Amino acid sequence: KGVSQSVLDQSSVSGEPGFEPLVVLELASDIKEEAVVWLLSRIRDPQQNGGAELLVEHLGPGVRPQEKENPNLFLVGASWQRLLSGAEDLGLFKEYSDGSMRGFTCSNKHNFKDFTGDGDSFLSMAECQHIIKHELDTLRAREETHVPGYPQAKLYPGKSIIRRLQSKRILIQMFPLHHKEELKRLSFSWYQKVRLSLQPLDSIRHYYGEGQALYFGFLEYFTFALVPMALIGVPYYLFDWEDYDKYVIFAVFNLVWCTVILELWKRRSASLAYQWGTLSRKQAFEEPRPGFHGVLGFNPVTGREEPLYSNAKRQLRIYLVSLPFVLLCLYLSLYVMMVYFLLEGWVLSIHDENPTFWTGVLLFIPSVAYAVVIEAMNLIYRYAAEFLTEWENHRLESSYQNHLVLKVLVYNFFNCFASLFYIAFVMQDMVLLRQSLATLLITSQILNQFMEAFLPYWLQRRRNKKMVRKVQGRRVLEDKALPLAEQVRLEADMSTYLGTFDDYLELFLLFGYVSLFSCVYPLAAVLVVLNNITEVYSDAFKMCHVFKRPFADPAANIGVWQLAFEAMSVIAVVTNCALIGMSPQVRAYFPHSETQLILWTVAVEHGLLALKFILTFLIPDVPKHIQIKLARIEFESLEALKKKVCLFVLG
Amino acid sequence: KGVSQSVLDQSSVSGEPGFEPLVVLELASDIKEEAVVWLLSRIRDPQQNGGAELLVEHLGPGVRPQEKENPNLFLVGASWQRLLSGAEDLGLFKEYSDGSMRGFTCSNKHNFKDFTGDGDSFLSMAECQHIIKHELDTLRAREETHVPGYPQAKLYPGKSIIRRLQSKRILIQMFPLHHKEELKRLSFSWYQKVRLSLQPLDSIRHYYGEGQALYFGFLEYFTFALVPMALIGVPYYLFDWEDYDKYVIFAVFNLVWCTVILELWKRRSASLAYQWGTLSRKQAFEEPRPGFHGVLGFNPVTGREEPLYSNAKRQLRIYLVSLPFVLLCLYLSLYVMMVYFLLEGWVLSIHDENPTFWTGVLLFIPSVAYAVVIEAMNLIYRYAAEFLTEWENHRLESSYQNHLVLKVLVYNFFNCFASLFYIAFVMQDMVLLRQSLATLLITSQILNQFMEAFLPYWLQRRRNKKMVRKVQGRRVLEDKALPLAEQVRLEADMSTYLGTFDDYLELFLLFGYVSLFSCVYPLAAVLVVLNNITEVYSDAFKMCHVFKRPFADPAANIGVWQLAFEAMSVIAVVTNCALIGMSPQVRAYFPHSETQLILWTVAVEHGLLALKFILTFLIPDVPKHIQIKLARIEFESLEALKKKVCLFVLG
Repeated sequence: KGVSQSVLDQSSVSGEPGFEPLVVLELASDIKEEAVVWLLSRIRDPQQNGGAELLVEHLGPGVRPQEKENPNLFLVGASWQRLLSGAEDLGLFKEYSDGSMRGFTCSNKHNFKDFTGDGDSFLSMAECQHIIKHELDTLRAREETHVPGYPQAKLYPGKSIIRRLQSKRILIQMFPLHHKEELKRLSFSWYQKVRLSLQPLDSIRHYYGEGQALYFGFLEYFTFALVPMALIGVPYYLFDWEDYDKYVIFAVFNLVWCTVILELWKRRSASLAYQWGTLSRKQAFEEPRPGFHGVLGFNPVTGREEPLYSNAKRQLRIYLVSLPFVLLCLYLSLYVMMVYFLLEGWVLSIHDENPTFWTGVLLFIPSVAYAVVIEAMNLIYRYAAEFLTEWENHRLESSYQNHLVLKVLVYNFFNCFASLFYIAFVMQDMVLLRQSLATLLITSQILNQFMEAFLPYWLQRRRNKKMVRKVQGRRVLEDKALPLAEQVRLEADMSTYLGTFDDYLELFLLFGYVSLFSCVYPLAAVLVVLNNITEVYSDAFKMCHVFKRPFADPAANIGVWQLAFEAMSVIAVVTNCALIGMSPQVRAYFPHSETQLILWTVAVEHGLLALKFILTFLIPDVPKHIQIKLARIEFESLEALKKKVCLFVLG
Repeated sequence: KGVSQSVLDQSSVSGEPGFEPLVVLELASDIKEEAVVWLLSRIRDPQQNGGAELLVEHLGPGVRPQEKENPNLFLVGASWQRLLSGAEDLGLFKEYSDGSMRGFTCSNKHNFKDFTGDGDSFLSMAECQHIIKHELDTLRAREETHVPGYPQAKLYPGKSIIRRLQSKRILIQMFPLHHKEELKRLSFSWYQKVRLSLQPLDSIRHYYGEGQALYFGFLEYFTFALVPMALIGVPYYLFDWEDYDKYVIFAVFNLVWCTVILELWKRRSASLAYQWGTLSRKQAFEEPRPGFHGVLGFNPVTGREEPLYSNAKRQLRIYLVSLPFVLLCLYLSLYVMMVYFLLEGWVLSIHDENPTFWTGVLLFIPSVAYAVVIEAMNLIYRYAAEFLTEWENHRLESSYQNHLVLKVLVYNFFNCFASLFYIAFVMQDMVLLRQSLATLLITSQILNQFMEAFLPYWLQRRRNKKMVRKVQGRRVLEDKALPLAEQVRLEADMSTYLGTFDDYLELFLLFGYVSLFSCVYPLAAVLVVLNNITEVYSDAFKMCHVFKRPFADPAANIGVWQLAFEAMSVIAVVTNCALIGMSPQVRAYFPHSETQLILWTVAVEHGLLALKFILTFLIPDVPKHIQIKLARIEFESLEALKKKVCLFVLG
């Protein structure tokens, strides 16, 4: 409505040779014309003039255009030369002819292994999309003081244009396109064929980027790591070793297991990241996140003008508001739990005194009420945590994520495990512990699978069908020859993938159930293995068919989650030692003195914790052969530096 | 005897202008002539021909040459141009004109702050000596198969010549010369004048290098950190709060103190290292240590030919021989301690039954015997540890040092603290603990000061006097115009400083006494403060007058000792919690249940340990303003790299 046909015509898909659409920009449907003209020219401008030097085309209307459809969809692509120089700017690591991973440089391009001809198949589509995203993100304002047509959308020299457009909702979304063929191949090898092999991690990385691939790699690794525990768990169940008498062996196994698998994962993760070229990649300086605000000043590191926000103020907000709030919520959560236990005891006593039908019904009320309250608190807390973290005004997305993860993690840990800890160590009722654990594990798994995969799938399916019906009946869908315009509109309508946060959180809680308490319910590991197997399939399915394609993120490790899992493994050592100390077998050694028993338990626990830290220290995080490769590159770059200095002096 | 006068004459001190002797090489007195000729020519050869391009001169005989005197002393120096290019090779960081620290490059030399004229006062003498040492160390064999005249001293292309000469004892020692004037100024401002100011750390660094300066910085920091504790300790002593009833407050203070000071030291150390330019300096690839042997092969990192030794074999030696040996020694140490306690009890019972003069004498026998046995074991263990670590055949000096430190540390910790732990937690005798602590602390301090400073000083003084008497009577010494030849001979005769190992070890044990048990003997901190003050003076004195000048070592932190002190602080948290739990006041809260008391103590201790780790995590190791400076340099180098690549493409 706001944009005249002439502007759009100039930029509609022209079938220019060599234009491959990679990324979609959806602008507000009522955007002002001058803003569109300005934005397109900035994106197309050559780099010398401060533009991004990318190709943009307008997406024509669908086959049967609807009133409600947004006409302002733009496709962004780039020439191969531009993408290669973008790869160099980003410091992308690719395999060199000698088999090592090196930062790509255009001057040296023919020495890279897969570089043939002009290099038009050198970069994967995900890499190209990541490069385009990076180029768009770093497209900076020059002398503009605001976005044309939007005086309230202030700009200043050096401000990222895309971030300002996003924060003012002029740019509604930016997402990479799927590649139908590749996706079909990937989804076939990933989850559609029955297979005994591992997941195609390299293909996943190729299509979705390193962050996703590391998640699926971790999921797979975690599942395999659980297999020995599941195998030990089965005889416990089969032979009915349910007198909680043999759980000492299991607890000892747990202790060792949770330390060792995390250490080994670090090595596996380093191997994967090396192979994918993200291990030693230098991170470019992070841009401030879109929502970050502050007084305009000069960044002391880059010297660029950007908003600054005092660190002291942020710390005050964190320690004086966020921290007390989190502690209050934890207290509330504990309080609700105690009320639940009280109510349960009270209802039980009423039922025992005078059992009628109504008291039988009453028996369920505390659990149901507790579950409802917990869910409600969880929901409110999640919003509050996001609000607070936003309000803390972190400059970097990574710092925002870390603070959010920490807040959500601590609270979820309490919600899930507080009742189990209470039952285990205050009530010391192993039968109840076992029941609660089984209930929690099974219900949460079923709920999760339903909420995560089937519900979005069903919603998406309905939406797709409606969409396709609108277009031209079902035949085209079956032929899979959907025109580009329809594909883009379909994908623009799909839900946005919000990152691996919830997936990791789920794994974290499962890891907790298994490492903390599986000795009293040995089937837990079996259940988690089964869950993980279906999780692989449902996650793969939702990545391929439910969500928009996410931008690749060049992660070198699983980040803050490694720390979270390690913290959990420390808690697991303490918990398992306490469970061992409380076991009848161990108690039998100290028939007369409980004090002696406790002192010994504590001493052993301290020894084990010390051993754990020594092990963490002794096992190198990066396998030897990769260390050597990294050291060799480092050495060569030092030698090259010496020579380069000579060249400079001579030249 | 072996070297003819003609060879020596060619290289005797000629009074060439610009030759400033920096480093002394003492060759074996019976060295073959061809070896000297070859070595001198290799040192003097220009760099293009694989030489070190340094200046060497032979030191003429003393004023009254003695029969026993070694005639083969050589002085090494270099031109200023050579030293500046050596500084660039080493990657020395110097202050830039904008106040930041940058790697020195010759092409850019005029932009460095203190660079004036030809730059002949740009590098400190310690830096020059370090550069010369580095150039000599990296002087490599070309096609020689052995040192001329010594067929058993094998060489291969790339082998460091100096290291081979050292390992075959052809080169007896290599040491940097003192600078009489500067030393006088330094020692005056350091310890000769009565002062209230801090140590002249910058001058110490200027003269002795960063490693030494960091040690003295740490000693000073540690002393200041102890002052609050000493201040709290005094009223305890004055007002006779000796009922061990008020020590809870002290223990709590200890807990917080030992965590906080170590975290703050990391920041202080980073500030010092930044200021001295060692914080972000890239370490050059370390050469194998002189004693390292193995099968000749190619280093996978550098591609150079050098001996290789399988890591698996070394690990086997460490875990199958060294580790069991250390454990055995610890067991022996514990066993000896138990025997001591038994003997003491037995002697005491004899004396109590029938006290005579002889039983009175007998009372002292267990302590004396224990002290003697401990000292003997300590001595034997130290030799064994050095032998074993040598035998483990570490490739790098740093790895050798770490393993040696670890071995010695663990054993010393046991020897010093096992008896105190036994008294505190098994015998639970606070009065005895206090006595033992006081005895250990006072005797060890007195012994240390004596062994460390006065004894070597006295020996050195005797030696010097003899030397000077030999030369020309006492008048010259008083005039302080000792000729160079005599100065070199005097210094060559001084003891060699063996590094900061024993100094740090002493501080580590003192830190242990204070942080672990000072709550039962509050005067401990006062004693340690007094000890540290005298330690500063005696260490300063011995550095200036007792020992040969050591080569500067460009350390960025106190290395493995930071870890050792942190481990001690963790043990301190546990110990103090246990002491608090055992205190009468806390016991009073749990009159009926010891179990409750222990459980609470353990819970609080776990909470404190968790808090400690969170604190370690939260307090950044490097102060913010230095982080920004480092990030700026990193950013600039990334930007420069982009431009440089363009230059390369264009050029």
